Amino acid sequence: MILLEQIHATVADGLILVEEALREVSRVDYPLLAQLIAHVLRPGGKRIRPSITLLAGKLFDYRLDKLVPMAAAMELLHTATLVHDDVLDRSEVRRGQPTINSVASAGTAVLVGDYLFAKSADLVASTENLRAMTLFAQTLMVICTGELRQAFGAKDPNSRREDYFRWVQGKTAALFATAAESGGILSGAPERALDALRAYGYNLGMAFQVVDDILDFSGSQEQLGKPARNDLLQGILTLPSILYLERHPDDGRLRRILERRATPAEVDEIADEIRSSSVLADAYAIADEFARAARAALADLPDQPARQTLESLIEFTVRRSS
Amino acid sequence: MILLEQIHATVADGLILVEEALREVSRVDYPLLAQLIAHVLRPGGKRIRPSITLLAGKLFDYRLDKLVPMAAAMELLHTATLVHDDVLDRSEVRRGQPTINSVASAGTAVLVGDYLFAKSADLVASTENLRAMTLFAQTLMVICTGELRQAFGAKDPNSRREDYFRWVQGKTAALFATAAESGGILSGAPERALDALRAYGYNLGMAFQVVDDILDFSGSQEQLGKPARNDLLQGILTLPSILYLERHPDDGRLRRILERRATPAEVDEIADEIRSSSVLADAYAIADEFARAARAALADLPDQPARQTLESLIEFTVRRSS
Repeated sequence: MILLEQIHATVADGLILVEEALREVSRVDYPLLAQLIAHVLRPGGKRIRPSITLLAGKLFDYRLDKLVPMAAAMELLHTATLVHDDVLDRSEVRRGQPTINSVASAGTAVLVGDYLFAKSADLVASTENLRAMTLFAQTLMVICTGELRQAFGAKDPNSRREDYFRWVQGKTAALFATAAESGGILSGAPERALDALRAYGYNLGMAFQVVDDILDFSGSQEQLGKPARNDLLQGILTLPSILYLERHPDDGRLRRILERRATPAEVDEIADEIRSSSVLADAYAIADEFARAARAALADLPDQPARQTLESLIEFTVRRSS
Repeated sequence: MILLEQIHATVADGLILVEEALREVSRVDYPLLAQLIAHVLRPGGKRIRPSITLLAGKLFDYRLDKLVPMAAAMELLHTATLVHDDVLDRSEVRRGQPTINSVASAGTAVLVGDYLFAKSADLVASTENLRAMTLFAQTLMVICTGELRQAFGAKDPNSRREDYFRWVQGKTAALFATAAESGGILSGAPERALDALRAYGYNLGMAFQVVDDILDFSGSQEQLGKPARNDLLQGILTLPSILYLERHPDDGRLRRILERRATPAEVDEIADEIRSSSVLADAYAIADEFARAARAALADLPDQPARQTLESLIEFTVRRSS
């Protein structure tokens, strides 16, 4: 079993500076506000996106003065989307902790999310790298468009796995791809390596989200740090429920779930059927395909220890239980 | 009386392209979503910020290929903050029209605001100008920090006019300053002119917000396109109520308003007292000071018709009734 600590160890010097940069973000005027921001950025997160940026940079000219702000920006942008997602879903718990909208207010969560977006853009600007800044702005667009697509599409019982892949591309894979590519950009990687890093990040991100959505069915609240079956409870389709829908297109219960008219017992029934059928195994097979593509992309990168760590990160992503 | 149409006329060619760019923003997959975005960006807004960018550019090398995306980005960023503000305040009406949070949901308004933020960053990136992009990222930070400060500070009965100026700097003046300076940056203005443009924009923005906050007391709902006395009803201090508080520090009614414990009759009483006292005249005098500083900054800019229009814009800002 690959441990996250082993992955972090390769870029430990950079990650310490990333944590410092993240602590800096919560230094604001009002103590309550500082506490809320420190709370969502507290150490102990997986820090997968900043690790990817640092590892990509380590394959070339490992300039931490450029890589650290970019890596921190990746974590901030990710956190900003989570904070706003929790407003949308009215979630009360995330990573085992109460959300900002539950301890403060939805309005405060909106402003804190905006502040984290802004701070991430500001950190990317501090790299003074036009290409990294442009990539960041485009990624922001892809993410926000993806969020809108999912919000407007994921309650539609006619959604297919292709729709899901499109949502995930915007929601998760775009940021993973940018985390990898920007690490290459800021460390002087050649074009061919940038293509490889982007492909690696994209496919790793797809695998990551598919596994996340599987764990939402197979994991317990304790493991996940948030309520299990959360997506289904919210009436949101993800890969497992879409695969189920492909097999049982006429199941009225799932349609009622999407319309938020199902009873809690019906949600439990469907979740149990998904869990005990081969749907989750099929979803894992799809995650494995993305993992394979991510692994293949690594072939175009320098054969160095950091590349080995990027490969371990794929395995961690697919095998993790939380 | 200066009309907005006269101000727009000087840069009519650019404004037509800005409207086109804004229409482009609402071309998204889902018809309902497209309608919501088109709704908040519909023509008929004052378009003051994009006009400033274009007018600043017109003083130098008037390159519309660079100036138009920047000008559109200024309007988008402004609109994004309004959309999120309406979520915070749970406002139902803005510019005489229902808000997104009232016709759709708070969650949709959060996502639409995020999308507008992202689109503005993307448009700025399309200028391929590192300095403009850096300025934009910094401005985003100042605005979001200002929003947080106001949210956490503007209900504090110990707030002074200095606090108010600090909130307005973040909330309004920073964007006006960037609208002006970025127009100069993208049209090759010399450093001294950039300083002048920034000072012009900053002071115009301060005057603009002071007048906005005066009109909230002196205007009718019909004129304003939103409920009058809205800030007071929300328990938010602005310059008129702060000036009132300076004179009547022990008025328990105002303190109860800030704690949202006042009766509607008490809100009306205070609003009437502010309106019939010299508070509004004093606030206008403060707006005039900022207007004077904005006018003084123009001296360092080329003596051309566009400069005359920038001067007219100051007068419009201070004399407008809505």
